[in-house]
Amino acid sequence: MGPLRWGIMAAGKISYDMATASAALSPKEHFIAAIAARSLESAREFADEFKIPKAYGSYEELVQDPEIDVCYIGTLNPFHLELGKLALSHGKHVLCEKPLGMNVRETKELIDYAREKGLFLMEGIWSRFFPTYMRLREEIDKGSIGDVLQVFVSFGVPISEVDRIKKKEFGGGSVLDIGIYCVQLAQYVFGGDNPVKIISGGHLNENLVDESTSTTLLYTNGRTATLVTHTKCQMPNEACIIGTKGTLKLECPFWCPTHLTLADGKTHEFPLPPGKATKFFRSMGLSYEMSEVRRCINAGMLESPTVSHKETLRIAEIMQSIRKAVDVVYPQDII
Amino acid sequence: MGPLRWGIMAAGKISYDMATASAALSPKEHFIAAIAARSLESAREFADEFKIPKAYGSYEELVQDPEIDVCYIGTLNPFHLELGKLALSHGKHVLCEKPLGMNVRETKELIDYAREKGLFLMEGIWSRFFPTYMRLREEIDKGSIGDVLQVFVSFGVPISEVDRIKKKEFGGGSVLDIGIYCVQLAQYVFGGDNPVKIISGGHLNENLVDESTSTTLLYTNGRTATLVTHTKCQMPNEACIIGTKGTLKLECPFWCPTHLTLADGKTHEFPLPPGKATKFFRSMGLSYEMSEVRRCINAGMLESPTVSHKETLRIAEIMQSIRKAVDVVYPQDII
Repeated sequence: MGPLRWGIMAAGKISYDMATASAALSPKEHFIAAIAARSLESAREFADEFKIPKAYGSYEELVQDPEIDVCYIGTLNPFHLELGKLALSHGKHVLCEKPLGMNVRETKELIDYAREKGLFLMEGIWSRFFPTYMRLREEIDKGSIGDVLQVFVSFGVPISEVDRIKKKEFGGGSVLDIGIYCVQLAQYVFGGDNPVKIISGGHLNENLVDESTSTTLLYTNGRTATLVTHTKCQMPNEACIIGTKGTLKLECPFWCPTHLTLADGKTHEFPLPPGKATKFFRSMGLSYEMSEVRRCINAGMLESPTVSHKETLRIAEIMQSIRKAVDVVYPQDII
Repeated sequence: MGPLRWGIMAAGKISYDMATASAALSPKEHFIAAIAARSLESAREFADEFKIPKAYGSYEELVQDPEIDVCYIGTLNPFHLELGKLALSHGKHVLCEKPLGMNVRETKELIDYAREKGLFLMEGIWSRFFPTYMRLREEIDKGSIGDVLQVFVSFGVPISEVDRIKKKEFGGGSVLDIGIYCVQLAQYVFGGDNPVKIISGGHLNENLVDESTSTTLLYTNGRTATLVTHTKCQMPNEACIIGTKGTLKLECPFWCPTHLTLADGKTHEFPLPPGKATKFFRSMGLSYEMSEVRRCINAGMLESPTVSHKETLRIAEIMQSIRKAVDVVYPQDII
């Protein structure tokens, strides 16, 4: 079997990091075949930087290229659904940046479409493929902290003036951009159970998207997740997973951690693959999810068990509840 | 002016610690004149241990002793109102363990009664008199972390099987016992402003008191406090006070901290007065609030500006909102 042939949609920072991270993988297994952007110029510039053979000035051209197996969607949130469907409609598997859709409706629509087409689709919750997260899972499963009762996590960074965060038309707000990392962690820890109650409050910016939120997810059997997002200040950004016998701590930044502190207080390191500098922090870790995409596609799977469609939908439902509680409404919600 | 003459009501653990902590103070300024308990035997035992001249087998006898200036109430929560009024009615100033009352009604009743009698009354929020808290206040006021936007704090300890916590008739539950430390911190940081919204969820035990809660307090100008209580597991128990320019951290345990980490990452120590072993952790720090009580009484003040009646009432209001959200109802609420 030859290398998985990737087509990258959008030439922004996260796409830059995906291309950079791919260098950690064997060229026999992964090959970036093409890059597309809305301008041919920026696609060509990107292609030159990463020695990608083909550059396209439109996403339509890329999805028509028969030498591409899987599309990576690295656009702003409001374009995930449209571009996901475009890629799927041309028989391409899809790895889409999180969140998969702007709301539950869009998320469901894209998942249904992928299933209908019989193609692989995964939301890019890259955190879950970090070795640190896998070790966390093992520790929870073997009971090293007893019954897990509380997830206590914050994600706060001063990004409130970044257009992607600030503007409603760009799908802005803290929940969709950074809150998803907190929500997915709670769901990861509590095995994908549905919370029985979702309680949230927050503050909106002048564009009526959330600049901060503070959320309580109540689960059965006395379990709780407390999640805080902030776009105006730096928070601890650690995740404490607390049980009756002790705590597991994903060290800051919990969403791409290389260090896990176990109940005995000892910190274990899970180093990243080496690579060039990335735009976002620790993006070499994107290579982990790229490996998972290849593994699943080669096995003929339509979804990854680690970020299943059901899981993606639940996360979308929780985020939508939080947004509803804090009164954030996107145009996509009104259709 | 002679020493302030204390009468201790109840011979339990916290009273033991008050007596122990008083050793850090000058005998020219503080003198424990008497101890009362429901049984004369335990009062005498306590008196012997601390060389207290008088032991009473009832609270009524103690409050009739003319050689007592101030009563310290160290009983279970449901008895604070009754004993507070008893002491005040006999012309004694009062320092009462937190919470002052079981609910807003009781709190208001005791405060009104003290004012009517023209006597000093303070809720024993001892944390606020720690030098660490005072330094925290100074740092906030001088703007060293910019605009304070978030308080992120947990108080979780495995005490769910302790009668005081477990039983409704003892005034149990996490909010009244440990949650008050989180609430008072938020109020301390945000200068006593009223939250504009209080959102909370939690889990109840078999007696229908809260074994855990997770609360969001929303304040004006984008400010938030996220507070978690737990009685079944050990939480981080640090308090992060987060601003636009950095974070101040009250190191664990935040409610009686000897270490404050400033925005530059440097940790400053504020050591406790030395003393004998105490029942609860760092109770030598109770001496700080004892000093404040003396300062206020000698100055003819009826309340401390650091734990004012208004502040005590606001804290009671917030706790009552949290309890309401999690459906905890005490008999005292039903009258």
